[in-house]
Amino acid sequence: MDSFNDNRTFMKSGFDLPEREFVSDQERGMPPPPLGKTIDNNLKIIELPAVDKNIIQNSDLYSCLDNRRSRRNYTDGPITLEELSVLLWSTQGVQRIIPAYKNTGHITLRPVPSAGGRHTYETYLAVNNVTGLEKGIYIYLPLEHKLAFWNSVDDLQDKLAYAYGGENYQDEAKWFGRAPVIFLWSCIPYRGEWRYHCEAHRLMLIDIGHVCQNLYLACEGIGCGTCAIGAYVQKAFDELLLLDGQDEYVVYISAVGKLERKDTP
Amino acid sequence: MDSFNDNRTFMKSGFDLPEREFVSDQERGMPPPPLGKTIDNNLKIIELPAVDKNIIQNSDLYSCLDNRRSRRNYTDGPITLEELSVLLWSTQGVQRIIPAYKNTGHITLRPVPSAGGRHTYETYLAVNNVTGLEKGIYIYLPLEHKLAFWNSVDDLQDKLAYAYGGENYQDEAKWFGRAPVIFLWSCIPYRGEWRYHCEAHRLMLIDIGHVCQNLYLACEGIGCGTCAIGAYVQKAFDELLLLDGQDEYVVYISAVGKLERKDTP
Repeated sequence: MDSFNDNRTFMKSGFDLPEREFVSDQERGMPPPPLGKTIDNNLKIIELPAVDKNIIQNSDLYSCLDNRRSRRNYTDGPITLEELSVLLWSTQGVQRIIPAYKNTGHITLRPVPSAGGRHTYETYLAVNNVTGLEKGIYIYLPLEHKLAFWNSVDDLQDKLAYAYGGENYQDEAKWFGRAPVIFLWSCIPYRGEWRYHCEAHRLMLIDIGHVCQNLYLACEGIGCGTCAIGAYVQKAFDELLLLDGQDEYVVYISAVGKLERKDTP
Repeated sequence: MDSFNDNRTFMKSGFDLPEREFVSDQERGMPPPPLGKTIDNNLKIIELPAVDKNIIQNSDLYSCLDNRRSRRNYTDGPITLEELSVLLWSTQGVQRIIPAYKNTGHITLRPVPSAGGRHTYETYLAVNNVTGLEKGIYIYLPLEHKLAFWNSVDDLQDKLAYAYGGENYQDEAKWFGRAPVIFLWSCIPYRGEWRYHCEAHRLMLIDIGHVCQNLYLACEGIGCGTCAIGAYVQKAFDELLLLDGQDEYVVYISAVGKLERKDTP
């Protein structure tokens, strides 16, 4: 397995190793990158309803953990904005901002931890079937708990299925293209590199796992299901979100839809 | 930021790229690696109490999400085996085994997703203060929901503090060395490489984020707190767990302790 050595090394902590020593931009006194992406003023803003914990009908942590599965079979029913509000808050909602201390920059507190409080991800949504939203791509504005309409895409379902499955798996990918809403998390790597330099990337991958796990649990809580996707056509998703694939790129994806309501108590 | 290009590329999906094309050992028909680590028959086995959801007193998913913080201040109180049982199950407990289908190998279902159901991690515990357990290192046996005593370590708290903080941060690291119990997740990379070859490592990093997020939420549920650690002295932790650092190595760590009971309702 020698050919995997570099990849295995990437997974390990190197903070104490002379050969991986670094001076980060933070240590150089460079200003911290902004907490959120700067959004074009012309984008249409969509207000989200306040997070209503009462729509989490399966509200018991133990049950959510116990029921957690990757689910690909969704009903034709739409996701409501109330449900979307809960899912966005659970994964990336901003609960509080801690003011900058020395050269830390402001730090956001969220339902997920992030190495050094960097929170290096943006959340985009591919919307097929959400009550009150036209189809297309949206971006979540976590500091305001709002959505902005990011762009419209012709043949969205086909493009999603291709980006998921590539040339060879278009049939198998149809469930994905048809999902009512798809969470697409993009990384802005400099947010992590500013503090952790070449150690940032390992930590940022771990961080998106925190985020997606909350999506799994919150989906179970509201009678939805989700299925995370780690193998996909990178270029196709980056293009769909109008990302340059260098300073921002998709890292993880999870489809969401409604499940049949169970009759069990 | 050109120097970060390779690291950024590591974070991206490459399944569709000709230059990252591979034939995995699974595709070659090689037998799947075992689901769990083979344990020396002589190790002392410790039975864990059955998972009792009633000890999750803050049982509400929303509250656990809302309260989630990285917590480093613990009381002197011990963790009970009942609490440890809940935390281990929430993070890596095996709920069901799906029999092998074609050449998939058996697959375990757990409260966390894992790419391809590979579940490539082992859970070790550094125990300082758990009712009924002597101090030392333990390994969790998820297929049996038991612990095995892995090894005893002289001056465990000092060694933990050093492994956390290195030479320069021993004072700051004392909170860590004293934590009642520390979860140490090691990766057995071949479990992922068998199926995903050079794409495995990215996916395995994401997977340990899933696991740790459940630890955060389950801790909030039982009145404990946890703090994940991504920067540490790799060699020191690998040696503490008697790992070779090549076919198995520590990837993520989280300290756990009791919190003062709040008077708020």
